[in-house]
Amino acid sequence: MKQEAIQFDTVNINEQNDALLIIDQTQLPGKKEILSLNKLEDIWDAIYLLKVRGAPAIGVAAAIGIYLAAKKIETDNYSKFLSEFQEAKEYLASSRPTAVNLFWALDRMENVVLENEDTTVEAIKQKLLAEAIKIREEDIQVCRSIGEYGLSLIKDGDGILTHCNAGSLATVKYGTALAPIYVGLEQGMKFKVFADETRPLLQGARLTAYELVEHGVETTVICDNMAAQVMKNGWIDAIFVGCDRVAANGDAANKIGTSGVAIMAKHYNIPFYVCAPTSTIDPKIKHGDDIPIEERPGSEITEMWYKERMVHPDAKTYNPAFDVTDHELITAIITEFGVIKKPYVENFVKLFKRVNRE
Amino acid sequence: MKQEAIQFDTVNINEQNDALLIIDQTQLPGKKEILSLNKLEDIWDAIYLLKVRGAPAIGVAAAIGIYLAAKKIETDNYSKFLSEFQEAKEYLASSRPTAVNLFWALDRMENVVLENEDTTVEAIKQKLLAEAIKIREEDIQVCRSIGEYGLSLIKDGDGILTHCNAGSLATVKYGTALAPIYVGLEQGMKFKVFADETRPLLQGARLTAYELVEHGVETTVICDNMAAQVMKNGWIDAIFVGCDRVAANGDAANKIGTSGVAIMAKHYNIPFYVCAPTSTIDPKIKHGDDIPIEERPGSEITEMWYKERMVHPDAKTYNPAFDVTDHELITAIITEFGVIKKPYVENFVKLFKRVNRE
Repeated sequence: MKQEAIQFDTVNINEQNDALLIIDQTQLPGKKEILSLNKLEDIWDAIYLLKVRGAPAIGVAAAIGIYLAAKKIETDNYSKFLSEFQEAKEYLASSRPTAVNLFWALDRMENVVLENEDTTVEAIKQKLLAEAIKIREEDIQVCRSIGEYGLSLIKDGDGILTHCNAGSLATVKYGTALAPIYVGLEQGMKFKVFADETRPLLQGARLTAYELVEHGVETTVICDNMAAQVMKNGWIDAIFVGCDRVAANGDAANKIGTSGVAIMAKHYNIPFYVCAPTSTIDPKIKHGDDIPIEERPGSEITEMWYKERMVHPDAKTYNPAFDVTDHELITAIITEFGVIKKPYVENFVKLFKRVNRE
Repeated sequence: MKQEAIQFDTVNINEQNDALLIIDQTQLPGKKEILSLNKLEDIWDAIYLLKVRGAPAIGVAAAIGIYLAAKKIETDNYSKFLSEFQEAKEYLASSRPTAVNLFWALDRMENVVLENEDTTVEAIKQKLLAEAIKIREEDIQVCRSIGEYGLSLIKDGDGILTHCNAGSLATVKYGTALAPIYVGLEQGMKFKVFADETRPLLQGARLTAYELVEHGVETTVICDNMAAQVMKNGWIDAIFVGCDRVAANGDAANKIGTSGVAIMAKHYNIPFYVCAPTSTIDPKIKHGDDIPIEERPGSEITEMWYKERMVHPDAKTYNPAFDVTDHELITAIITEFGVIKKPYVENFVKLFKRVNRE
């Protein structure tokens, strides 16, 4: 592989010191602090307090975390080891009760223990380390592949709009929506990126702008309500966003505001791409209406970040964390196995047949 | 006229105490303080510091302010009076150099002086008071009329979306975009209003929610990027927005984000209405592209209101204060003389012929 463009590791393991290394995202953009964590309680806190966030990054952090916990189990007895492992697993799983990637990563790690009853505990610990590293490497490769396919859709110098943070800070290295930009960087290309600030949690302003600027990408932060204007100005050649879940028909759930960006993109005839590892495509969900939309506290809108509350105390709020973008508005869905276009139902079936997944 | 729904005066005169009364909008929504101002310097400050804002409200405040200044001029000599009046006028005009309504109101007041050279200074002062009161009353009537025409387009119980603040706080009493809601209130109707918070200056969160809640209107504050979701939910029956300037073809400049709302409204087939006193329709501007868009400091996006800066110091920003909504996206333009529909070019000409304006 060529020299990687990404200068920092969002989630890594320090094998010498038996530590999980993460960038503390709650301190960004003011301060970049690498946390070195080895106590299970501290890792639980880091996930719970969003010091590490983004579904792929959480999964990798959990895999490394459960390995570090397993390594500390002082026994040669398999049953005792399994019991203590599962206790630690349950504890770590409780840090973000709705994070699918967290459970997925912990289950993969548990399977290593379950499938190796006939070896020594010491050997299982080595296999757990290997599995955690593999989960991490797979994330890098999946994202890089999405980046390569995404890059094929744009050209050097293009203006790119993105929403929320589906970048390096949400994964191990490349991100999903920002992967095409980083892979392009490796090839000497330059893009002008516009980052929606992404109210109310400001992931675009705080995180996307941070990671892009740190990698030398020209980045302009706009308020969410300015997206139509930058499109009208002719500054945007393509839009890349991440996603949390894709239904069988191509409807895609992502951070609140994504569907509005897609509607404006259609109006201005700008291609709108959803970057989705195949793990986020859920063929069991037929239609986007079946994806539940999490509502979060109104205080995120009315007072979070501010010096004082900005809204009359008797005003109501509505704070959906996600929305669903209709598949008709999505130009293509970019996976690690290629660019999928309409009709999504049929083309997802073909994709899964090709990669041997039901 | 029936009992007015509006419980507060955004701009008024206290004739007993020779004072301009305004609600200090910089303290909202935390505190409602009525300022009583009689020194010209204090009135200048109030306009400059946005304690009074909104084009109509500024015009009325300036008219009252220049009357109060004129009243203090101690002379019976017309020339001396005119000279001191014009000095005060120039000073007040410098408080917001781009505010068209400010100059318009001050010119109207000056004309009273210029047209009455053959009367006494004392009589001129009385005529100035009458003119200031007239300017204020006209604003109330224009807004109320817009409210009546707007109300004819909605029905009791409707869900209404608005952007920024074109309400009572931007005028003397009824507002423009919110006038249909207040006139409906007078008739016992109830609406469910959704207020875009309107980044970066948060006029929707701070001001629109404040004035609606204070008048008993059920108001829900959303982030700008949630507008598509509330439309998709089926909660919005009509959208009302104000405007700063309307071109001859119906293109309308208003607070940044308005055009995006209009695009989403078209996608969800929701009527999108622009409330515009005819004074904001500018037949000399043929097309919205000819309306210059003010860019404001990026610090409004990156640090204003916040406890700390939220964006990497090397990230760029783009902060247009307004955008132009294409006339094709506007269902109708609501003026004090009636509801104007497409084709706007022809129908504006008819409107102006009918009301004797070239």
